[in-house]
Amino acid sequence: MSNTQTFTDLYAEVQHFYAKQVQLLDSRAFDEYAATYTEDAEFQHSPGVPPAVTRTAILAELHRFHERFEADPVQRRHWFNGFVLEPQEDGSVRSTFYALIVHVRPGVREPEIGPSCVVHDVLVWSDGVLLTRSRRVDHDHAA
Amino acid sequence: MSNTQTFTDLYAEVQHFYAKQVQLLDSRAFDEYAATYTEDAEFQHSPGVPPAVTRTAILAELHRFHERFEADPVQRRHWFNGFVLEPQEDGSVRSTFYALIVHVRPGVREPEIGPSCVVHDVLVWSDGVLLTRSRRVDHDHAA
Amino acid sequence: MSNTQTFTDLYAEVQHFYAKQVQLLDSRAFDEYAATYTEDAEFQHSPGVPPAVTRTAILAELHRFHERFEADPVQRRHWFNGFVLEPQEDGSVRSTFYALIVHVRPGVREPEIGPSCVVHDVLVWSDGVLLTRSRRVDHDHAA
Repeated sequence: MSNTQTFTDLYAEVQHFYAKQVQLLDSRAFDEYAATYTEDAEFQHSPGVPPAVTRTAILAELHRFHERFEADPVQRRHWFNGFVLEPQEDGSVRSTFYALIVHVRPGVREPEIGPSCVVHDVLVWSDGVLLTRSRRVDHDHAA
Repeated sequence: MSNTQTFTDLYAEVQHFYAKQVQLLDSRAFDEYAATYTEDAEFQHSPGVPPAVTRTAILAELHRFHERFEADPVQRRHWFNGFVLEPQEDGSVRSTFYALIVHVRPGVREPEIGPSCVVHDVLVWSDGVLLTRSRRVDHDHAA
Repeated sequence: MSNTQTFTDLYAEVQHFYAKQVQLLDSRAFDEYAATYTEDAEFQHSPGVPPAVTRTAILAELHRFHERFEADPVQRRHWFNGFVLEPQEDGSVRSTFYALIVHVRPGVREPEIGPSCVVHDVLVWSDGVLLTRSRRVDHDHAA
C-alpha cells in the first residue's frame, strides 16, 4: 500500500487496475498487458505449465498460449470478482480473488464458461503505478 | 467527474449507480430505469436495432423489447463487472465494462447465461445526480 | 454506517467484507464464516428451510447443509455482485445484491452454475467490525 493511501483508496485502485488488465488481455494487447507486470514478475497461469519469470518471458508465454486460438475465432472475457486484499509490511499487497473465463464464439449466444479459478497475486507500486509482481492461478477442477 | 470528487469516490459512486440501475431493469421498473438516463440520452442495446434517442424513446424501446417475455416467465439478471472509467475534460466519464445476462425460468435451478457483452457508456452529472447519457452494447457473439 | 464513515468508505468496506465472507464459506471454514454474523443473527439461505437464529444455529445449519457434499467432491464458489446499500437511521445498512453459485467437480473444466439468487442482508457494526445481522436469500427459480 502506498504510504499515503487509505484502504478505501487502495480498494478502488486495485479494482480499477484489474478491470483495465483484463480488458487488455481479452483484446490481446499483449505488450500493454505484460506492462502491467513488474520487469521481474513471476506468472503461473496454468496447472502443469512452469511459471514465466520476467516481463519478456510473460509476453512469450502469452503468445505461445494464444497460438491455440489462431484457428478458433473465440472472444475470451476474464471475469474477476471478490478481491481480498492483505497489505504487507514491505508495501506490497496480497490479493486473492475468484476468476471465471467466458468463451464466446461467433453466432453462438450462450458462452462456454470455465474454468473457475482462484488467483493469488502480489501487487506492488513502481513509480506510483500499481503492477503485478507475481500471479499464481489455481484451477478449481485441477485441485 | 464532479468538481470536488476523488477517483475513489467516483469509482464507488459508479459501481453503486450500476447496481441500482440493473436492479431497476431486472425488476421491470422501466420508468425508474429510464430515469437513470438523461432526457436526451442515446441507448443502443441490441445489434441491428437503431438507437433509441431521448428518455421517452428509451422507455418505449424497453416496453417493446420486453413484449417477448409476456408469454415467457423468465427472470433476467444483468451482471455488470470490471468498470474502466475515463474522466473526460467536459466533466463526463467514459465507462467500459463487461456484462452477462442471466435468464432464470421457474423451477429450473441452472440459469441460461448469455449473451456476453461489452458496454460503452458515457456518464454525466445532472444536478448532482449521476446519469447515463449514452450506452452502446456490443454483443460478443455478433462481433 | 459507522459515525465517521463516508459512503465511499462504506462501499469499499462492504465489498471487502463480502469477498472475505465467501472465501471463508467456500473453503468451509464454518467457524470463521459464522463469526461474520452477529450472535443473534437470522439466516435463511434456502427456500422452504426455516431461518437459523443465533450464530450457533447458523453453524449447525452450515454443517447440516454441507452433509450432502460428503460423498460429492464439489468445490463451490459464491459470486456476489452489484451491491445496493441503504444506510438506515439505526446505523445498520440494508444490502441487496445478486448471487450465483458455481459448482466445480474434479477434472471437469466447465462448472455447473446456479442457482441465481437475490440476497437481502442487514449489516451492523459491532466494536468496529462489520457483521451480518440477517440474511434472506431469494432463489430466482423458486420465486
